[in-house]
Amino acid sequence: MARVEAPQDALGRLIEALRVLPGVGPKSAQRMAFYLLQHDRNGAAVLAQSLGEAVDTVGHCARCNTFSETQICSTCADGRRDPSLLCIVETPADQVMVEQTLSFKGNYFVLMGRISPLDGMGPNEIHFDRLLTRIENPDTGVPIREVVLATNFTSEGEATAHYIGEVLKAKGIKVTRIARGIPVGGELEYVDAGTLARALMDRR
Amino acid sequence: MARVEAPQDALGRLIEALRVLPGVGPKSAQRMAFYLLQHDRNGAAVLAQSLGEAVDTVGHCARCNTFSETQICSTCADGRRDPSLLCIVETPADQVMVEQTLSFKGNYFVLMGRISPLDGMGPNEIHFDRLLTRIENPDTGVPIREVVLATNFTSEGEATAHYIGEVLKAKGIKVTRIARGIPVGGELEYVDAGTLARALMDRR
Repeated sequence: MARVEAPQDALGRLIEALRVLPGVGPKSAQRMAFYLLQHDRNGAAVLAQSLGEAVDTVGHCARCNTFSETQICSTCADGRRDPSLLCIVETPADQVMVEQTLSFKGNYFVLMGRISPLDGMGPNEIHFDRLLTRIENPDTGVPIREVVLATNFTSEGEATAHYIGEVLKAKGIKVTRIARGIPVGGELEYVDAGTLARALMDRR
Repeated sequence: MARVEAPQDALGRLIEALRVLPGVGPKSAQRMAFYLLQHDRNGAAVLAQSLGEAVDTVGHCARCNTFSETQICSTCADGRRDPSLLCIVETPADQVMVEQTLSFKGNYFVLMGRISPLDGMGPNEIHFDRLLTRIENPDTGVPIREVVLATNFTSEGEATAHYIGEVLKAKGIKVTRIARGIPVGGELEYVDAGTLARALMDRR
């Protein structure tokens, strides 16, 4: 058979192609291919169509840079949101998480990455020029009152927040950072020392 | 956004469609969709094409019932294999595993399931009639000398092996079962009692 090694047939090519999915190795890819062919050919056809459709139609919102089929995404186009508040996140997944809290009603800017010199990611790669234009000349017509930095608390996320924060503060724009501290339901005994130290420093 | 809940756009439909993959829930599906759109649109397009191609072209081998694009699969068509030996496995994945041992050079019959009355799987669902025809009137022209039962050692796999074994033995066909016992490298101390008991019973 040698299916797993040399993808000369449609099944082998499918197994190979499934490996583009994050976290899917040869074993999972084979399992997925067999499963789809045996139990859900209809679902596989729908998946093929959805993949093709998304690749063709999904671009980036001209205003917030998140994935969007339209020039301006539905979040940016929503007139009920406060255009004077701008939340900066690293990825569309982070934006979804912030949205799910139901506690932010401003607009977003999605960096599609984070500053990470080791990975060749600098200000250009996080679309910093577009972010500045978005803040200094908002096409919503409403000046930005506050920028909320909601990048991750990893070293790259912190560096990104620091860089953006410094540049914006120098321009006199109000910049805040989401709080670091003990998670809801967290117990001091099981929290790492770094988090506890920051929670003490940031007490209010 | 409400992307995760209501798939009205291409991205939402892609996330929903990815959930047909086994072991992929809403979070993984979202992660996969974002990853593909941001980092590997080309891979996504290839995956779409491979899925469509496989759904359209992959059927079942007329002889051994495994997945095949051709009427007779490459394993069955291989003249160097011993057609008088027939190994019965539950799934194509199991067949791949047996092949990888490089210690079986006969032909296969893939049940595409196992007898499991609770799941509505009876002899019909495992293509038992085709298996009988395959054994009693082999279209290879060579009579079957031995049938090797290589179903799983789960209760369903055992029931399947028992059922097939009884019917074939009643017809005077030689039937063997792959050995149950301590795995290679296994230590008695850490093996479960059931396996050790069988290993003792099956000592040789």
